[in-house]
Amino acid sequence: MKSRPLTRDTKTLQRRLVQRPHEAGTRQRMYDIIFEAETPEGRAFDIGLLVAIVTSIVFVSLETLPDYQVTRVVDGQTIHDLPLWLVVGEWLLTILFTLEYIARLLCVRHPLKYATSFWGIVDLLSVLPGYAALLTGDSARSFVILRSVRLLRVFRVLKLWRMMSQADELADAIWNSRDKIIVFLSVVLVAVTISGTLMYHIESVMFGSLPDSDFTSIPQAMYWAIVTMTTVGYGDVVPHTTIGKIISAALILLGYSLIIVPTGFVSAELSKGNSEPMEFHPCPRCEAARHRSDAEYCYRCGSDLDRPA
Amino acid sequence: MKSRPLTRDTKTLQRRLVQRPHEAGTRQRMYDIIFEAETPEGRAFDIGLLVAIVTSIVFVSLETLPDYQVTRVVDGQTIHDLPLWLVVGEWLLTILFTLEYIARLLCVRHPLKYATSFWGIVDLLSVLPGYAALLTGDSARSFVILRSVRLLRVFRVLKLWRMMSQADELADAIWNSRDKIIVFLSVVLVAVTISGTLMYHIESVMFGSLPDSDFTSIPQAMYWAIVTMTTVGYGDVVPHTTIGKIISAALILLGYSLIIVPTGFVSAELSKGNSEPMEFHPCPRCEAARHRSDAEYCYRCGSDLDRPA
Amino acid sequence: MKSRPLTRDTKTLQRRLVQRPHEAGTRQRMYDIIFEAETPEGRAFDIGLLVAIVTSIVFVSLETLPDYQVTRVVDGQTIHDLPLWLVVGEWLLTILFTLEYIARLLCVRHPLKYATSFWGIVDLLSVLPGYAALLTGDSARSFVILRSVRLLRVFRVLKLWRMMSQADELADAIWNSRDKIIVFLSVVLVAVTISGTLMYHIESVMFGSLPDSDFTSIPQAMYWAIVTMTTVGYGDVVPHTTIGKIISAALILLGYSLIIVPTGFVSAELSKGNSEPMEFHPCPRCEAARHRSDAEYCYRCGSDLDRPA
Amino acid sequence: MKSRPLTRDTKTLQRRLVQRPHEAGTRQRMYDIIFEAETPEGRAFDIGLLVAIVTSIVFVSLETLPDYQVTRVVDGQTIHDLPLWLVVGEWLLTILFTLEYIARLLCVRHPLKYATSFWGIVDLLSVLPGYAALLTGDSARSFVILRSVRLLRVFRVLKLWRMMSQADELADAIWNSRDKIIVFLSVVLVAVTISGTLMYHIESVMFGSLPDSDFTSIPQAMYWAIVTMTTVGYGDVVPHTTIGKIISAALILLGYSLIIVPTGFVSAELSKGNSEPMEFHPCPRCEAARHRSDAEYCYRCGSDLDRPA
Repeated sequence: MKSRPLTRDTKTLQRRLVQRPHEAGTRQRMYDIIFEAETPEGRAFDIGLLVAIVTSIVFVSLETLPDYQVTRVVDGQTIHDLPLWLVVGEWLLTILFTLEYIARLLCVRHPLKYATSFWGIVDLLSVLPGYAALLTGDSARSFVILRSVRLLRVFRVLKLWRMMSQADELADAIWNSRDKIIVFLSVVLVAVTISGTLMYHIESVMFGSLPDSDFTSIPQAMYWAIVTMTTVGYGDVVPHTTIGKIISAALILLGYSLIIVPTGFVSAELSKGNSEPMEFHPCPRCEAARHRSDAEYCYRCGSDLDRPA
Repeated sequence: MKSRPLTRDTKTLQRRLVQRPHEAGTRQRMYDIIFEAETPEGRAFDIGLLVAIVTSIVFVSLETLPDYQVTRVVDGQTIHDLPLWLVVGEWLLTILFTLEYIARLLCVRHPLKYATSFWGIVDLLSVLPGYAALLTGDSARSFVILRSVRLLRVFRVLKLWRMMSQADELADAIWNSRDKIIVFLSVVLVAVTISGTLMYHIESVMFGSLPDSDFTSIPQAMYWAIVTMTTVGYGDVVPHTTIGKIISAALILLGYSLIIVPTGFVSAELSKGNSEPMEFHPCPRCEAARHRSDAEYCYRCGSDLDRPA
Repeated sequence: MKSRPLTRDTKTLQRRLVQRPHEAGTRQRMYDIIFEAETPEGRAFDIGLLVAIVTSIVFVSLETLPDYQVTRVVDGQTIHDLPLWLVVGEWLLTILFTLEYIARLLCVRHPLKYATSFWGIVDLLSVLPGYAALLTGDSARSFVILRSVRLLRVFRVLKLWRMMSQADELADAIWNSRDKIIVFLSVVLVAVTISGTLMYHIESVMFGSLPDSDFTSIPQAMYWAIVTMTTVGYGDVVPHTTIGKIISAALILLGYSLIIVPTGFVSAELSKGNSEPMEFHPCPRCEAARHRSDAEYCYRCGSDLDRPA
Repeated sequence: MKSRPLTRDTKTLQRRLVQRPHEAGTRQRMYDIIFEAETPEGRAFDIGLLVAIVTSIVFVSLETLPDYQVTRVVDGQTIHDLPLWLVVGEWLLTILFTLEYIARLLCVRHPLKYATSFWGIVDLLSVLPGYAALLTGDSARSFVILRSVRLLRVFRVLKLWRMMSQADELADAIWNSRDKIIVFLSVVLVAVTISGTLMYHIESVMFGSLPDSDFTSIPQAMYWAIVTMTTVGYGDVVPHTTIGKIISAALILLGYSLIIVPTGFVSAELSKGNSEPMEFHPCPRCEAARHRSDAEYCYRCGSDLDRPA
């Protein structure tokens, strides 16, 4: 059994030991505001940053909406422009995130260590595409490609994790169920493969004369099987033959039975946390059993559990 | 940790102290019938009111059905009229709700306090639109707009809550899981954002030549991601490229794993009562908490839990 | 709190006391075979009956499939006939069920009491339509109407319940959660009403110029809300406006949170049954606590729990 | 109550006793590598085999994708050929699996016993179709039929089960809930039958004038009922009449309530391990069962549990 990775609290502590400036002063205060969330200022900084990130995501999303694009005709060519406030907003946010990145570099003890850490790279990648768009001249053609790179800014949203205090319990429950989840995923994939190929044959090969079969290939049939077993059921791929529908109904019931299992596993795992693990080891003096697993003294008579009577 | 808001019972008690008339008589009896549900008359009033509210909702719903509209041609214009029994029924209900509102105002000690309370405003807003329709002359044109205002009557249905006795237990379970639910919702929103932008790029930008892509913008792609991850799966937005389908299938499985987690949390919260009851009462000497509920000695230091340090 | 209705076992016992013939003989043996399932013959009879019922349902289903209908042209009119084996099979099953009904009437002590009981009426109604089809001449026109009556035979399938031995535990879990389920259903219906009327206004009234809105009326919008909140998601009614999609996504997440709650309730109720209720009452001699709630002697020292030390 | 089938570990042990060669040497070593997974070599063999199986499935799937088919025109006929690397890859894998099958036959003590066992047959069937394609000349016409047989190779994927160590716990939970699952499936099937025939009559018979009804037959309506109750909701069959939609909504809510039950059962079964472990060992005197696992005296009659009566 592999050991659980470090919890977030331990990681924050570790980083503080390595990166927090020793001498009290502006840099140390900046570090406390930017990297920690224990002071009111630090908390305010984190929330402000979160608002900026969400705003930036909303801006990028709005850019793709046809309603917010201004159509211009230049030299017979149709150019889709963005309204000024979106362009300005974009630039303000890019500058803000650049300043934040520089501030982070300035206040840590080892800037290179931060720059090469996971979050350092994420912070850099969410700033760069904005400048790349400027350097390449921002022509209509290159714009589409650059926009896709710029969207990496989305990763910044992962910083959300930094402010959560309940995430570890969730992570623990999932981590403890990992073996069961792997078995479950394997069973799902096997069921998807078998039912996908089966339906492909029934719908496309055996009744090959059917011109409008949705099961055009085995990968398509597997896509159908996943969409069906998870009860998503888009309806873009559906069986058209009677036998296909019968088998499909049977597979749905089977798949449904299969997919409810992990819910039970995670539920059971989470319920476990509620009941403190109790162990039998009876008290050597009063023989009371079922103490806490980390108990050193009997809950009933107070005698040392490890000392023989 | 914030304290749980007042339960409904406490609120009812509080209101009774402030609003119930002191002197026994008609007003006090009216108060007991209208605001309380402990006497048979009070209960009958509440149930009768509930029936009236549901009837009113059914009426407003029927009005929108084409089957119940009488088409008339006046001066070459087509006018959609409602059958008489619907119009009369509407008016009877509006008068009934007006009388109820006045009765509420009359029997409380502080009418203004009631009128400005949440339920006072809801009660008023569910009556006003009916009269507004009369004053504006009820022409065919303004009718559509007024009908939408009149639908606020729907909020009256919230009074349903007033007669439930099991709602608090449900509210407690949800309230106790609130931190986990917030974390979960954040994770869902991040996953929706990332998978939405990813699918937008795969379906619309990378394979931009595809003319019938359903992923026309990032908000549309996020809508798809929510519809997919919650296993609703309308099928109005579906991936058309092979790589889009593969990523979509992966996202479905990921999303499915994500979405089963809160079920487990609420289950675990509700099961909590079943398992070994642990109590907080900290040890007076070593301050270790969470002992067995029948513990007399601290499990860690062995000192008597009832003797002050 | 209302008392739980009689369990199936108690009902069987009650019926045996009233209906089972006193004198040993053919009638008593018939009763044991037809109404009871404790002898091998009785069990065989029940299983045989079940097979006949399922066969009858399969026959009625096949009749509606176009593949099994023989098209004939008589006097210029197209008549859809059924193949001979289906007609003969239908008649054999009808005769079989008639004989079974007569046998039931013959072997009970009070035939009228049986004939007017719930199952007596169901047994009769599943036989009558077959004869009604014969008496009316079975013309092509009346056939369609009679077939719909004949389908009442489907109720016979409810006899399935008679052979289950695990159904009571399931019924208990649901019965114990009934208050919570009622609250939950009310909340769902209120949410459906509010979100349905809201979406009707957004999609059809506010953006009324949109010609292809799927939200043609409030009942239609409520149908959409139920289909969406239960994550069925047919896709026949979907929002088309951007604001409609945003509100729809919010409602899906809300609805999803709402709908996972009853799962937790039933889970918790079922888990309760597993852990044998343990009670504290400590042993007067050895002070061991947490005995079975029906314990009379201490599990550790064997002394009487009710006798003071 | 039927006894649980042998667990995988017991089966492996049993097979080892019967099939593992007695004398140490090449055959014994081969057996340990091929059939066991306890040595590093055995584990490596199993993982290598797994990779080969997955590769083979990916190859068969790619063959059905139009993108990977080379179109040739010979004598005016269009022939869809596969690219060379796919054909060669197919052949290499077929030869590999043949060698593996021969190796399995060689290293067991009773080859015939292995060849007629379940896995022996699966191993053979996953190799044969590849050769069958060669013998019949592999013409374009027969190719489609043979390919469908060749897909039986998919069953080899079931070998996945051989390497899982958590599967037994899952299997136990499902096995223990089997009675409840059977009752549940019966209830689902009855509900499907009743709601299917009901909707068929409402949508097709009562409103028979409706030309575009999706409920063309009772089996079709049952398919709809299963797709709806499991919340898959393809949307290829939907109600079109108002009364059909109302009944449909009611059935969805009923079906939803029904389908959450088994989730609860499996959850409860999995949680069982958490609660106070109860053991069967009946009292030698009064035969009361289910004592605390640490009980020494009967809770009912107080006699010593370890002393024979």
